[in-house]
Amino acid sequence: MKGQILKALRECDGQLSGQTLSDLLGISRVSVWKHIQSLKSAGYVIEASARGYKLISSPDLLLPYEFTELEQEIHYFSEVGSTMDVARELARRGAREGTIVIAESQVHGRGRLSRQWFSPQGGIYFTFILRPGISPVYAPRVNLMASVAVATTIRNLLGLKTELKWPNDVLIEGRKVCGILAEMEAEMDAVNFVNLGIGINANTSIHQLEDKAISLKDVLGRAISRKELLRALLTEIRQQQPLLMEPALLDEWKKLSATLNKYVQIVVPGEVMVGRAIDIDTTGALIIEGRNGSVKKALAGDCIHLREEARNASSGGGQSAVLNTQDGADSS
Amino acid sequence: MKGQILKALRECDGQLSGQTLSDLLGISRVSVWKHIQSLKSAGYVIEASARGYKLISSPDLLLPYEFTELEQEIHYFSEVGSTMDVARELARRGAREGTIVIAESQVHGRGRLSRQWFSPQGGIYFTFILRPGISPVYAPRVNLMASVAVATTIRNLLGLKTELKWPNDVLIEGRKVCGILAEMEAEMDAVNFVNLGIGINANTSIHQLEDKAISLKDVLGRAISRKELLRALLTEIRQQQPLLMEPALLDEWKKLSATLNKYVQIVVPGEVMVGRAIDIDTTGALIIEGRNGSVKKALAGDCIHLREEARNASSGGGQSAVLNTQDGADSS
Repeated sequence: MKGQILKALRECDGQLSGQTLSDLLGISRVSVWKHIQSLKSAGYVIEASARGYKLISSPDLLLPYEFTELEQEIHYFSEVGSTMDVARELARRGAREGTIVIAESQVHGRGRLSRQWFSPQGGIYFTFILRPGISPVYAPRVNLMASVAVATTIRNLLGLKTELKWPNDVLIEGRKVCGILAEMEAEMDAVNFVNLGIGINANTSIHQLEDKAISLKDVLGRAISRKELLRALLTEIRQQQPLLMEPALLDEWKKLSATLNKYVQIVVPGEVMVGRAIDIDTTGALIIEGRNGSVKKALAGDCIHLREEARNASSGGGQSAVLNTQDGADSS
Repeated sequence: MKGQILKALRECDGQLSGQTLSDLLGISRVSVWKHIQSLKSAGYVIEASARGYKLISSPDLLLPYEFTELEQEIHYFSEVGSTMDVARELARRGAREGTIVIAESQVHGRGRLSRQWFSPQGGIYFTFILRPGISPVYAPRVNLMASVAVATTIRNLLGLKTELKWPNDVLIEGRKVCGILAEMEAEMDAVNFVNLGIGINANTSIHQLEDKAISLKDVLGRAISRKELLRALLTEIRQQQPLLMEPALLDEWKKLSATLNKYVQIVVPGEVMVGRAIDIDTTGALIIEGRNGSVKKALAGDCIHLREEARNASSGGGQSAVLNTQDGADSS
């Protein structure tokens, strides 16, 4: 209902009387008044005069009633341990596909491989519950889909050039602007659910971030509307979902990839692979051609883009590779 | 401690006095007496005379102290909803690799694809918690490993010819004697745990089973020692574990396979594949050659072995396949 009130106030030019809102939404004038009070206390500035209510400004919060038109179940927290943990419990208890957990900040934000994901206010942190019914072998494609969706949304909405670093980083100017984490529960025949966690450095200040990270605010020199970005991204994810198992997804990923044709070092527990990234396969694995022409497949792991010099060094037969300590910073 | 008392009683020829047991185990004579009483009430027949204790007979139960020497954490239930459900909770709470949940019977035994697994007394039902740290893409290899372990154990211990039907049935005389179910929780980089559920029709009566199933008791015409079989199987699984990612596992599976070189029909949601099973790949997927020479990969699904006639029919260019309604009953 709050979503509908906001929509009505935004769509009208001037004021809307309590009676008009009451008629429009089919609720009592007292109900209208209560919802307006509740919106005010959430940070919305709503002017009330004899002629009616007028929306002056909205807080930059990702409140569920800002996304009413998406018709998805939304769980909202101003602060939470981790949206992944909440979503996992919801999914285990049977939450429907499309259920979303949003937080303004996370105390124990999680990244890949049990790493922390720094989650101060100003970023966008959410987990999207998916039930694609696919074999767990194809679950990594959810990561590809998500990174394509984030890159496309940022490009379309903000006009920024985005690239993808395998397996699932979104880069701007070679620096990480978004991290993606997917977790699943499955039997071998099919996944039960895949929870997709997305963390975007939106209005986070550069001083809060690591060297190899960047925020949208840093790049643009101004704060962005986080709710506009999230709304566009959720819409994009829903548009991408039917393409999950289509070849088009891999084509899209390849177009956006900063990793393909680069020399890379992939670090997995107990192994380091070095070579040129030549393709991804249908499960999202990276195909790497070693210096001796051998072809290997990386299913997961940390990917470091090597400097161009490494390529020259390798053609000279040298064993050394010049590592770029700013992980990903050399993608051009 | 009960495990040690049973071991001592079994290893001695005649009686063992309370004092001897007390000295041997470093516990008081009162403690010895209490453990003996507890064993008696669990169904062990222990004769107590002036010369000491003598083990006359043991119940055919899979009590944890029958497996003490394996040094694995065992959770035992005379009846439980499902060992998979208990093990999942244990694994989520951090249970170590090798933790086992055993039940004499299950009220809601689970099979693949949310099917029921009929679990009356007389069968062997357990879940084994694994933490192999592999990519989820390779998790189906756990199924292969388990089916090889079951087939090998039954063959070695009981001298019965066992075969494997893809993806994970163990057959004797073409009928299913064991079902395997694996569930996992994972992020895309690595599995958190894989729970391996094994249900064996051991001393189950043929009257309790479906047509396409068979029990070890049926085949042998006598009841087997379930605890001996379980002990041997748990030992075999631990021996197979280090081979999980080795080519040797695939070789073993292929040797035991009743599916390879057969004409098969694989049913997955929304698709039916028919063709000759020519190989498995490194993820355990079945490679099928269609009649037109096209090669497809089945990651999961229900496999039906087709009769030999289908082969002849196909060489004659016919489209029809004679289905064996007794799923798997034609494996020779």
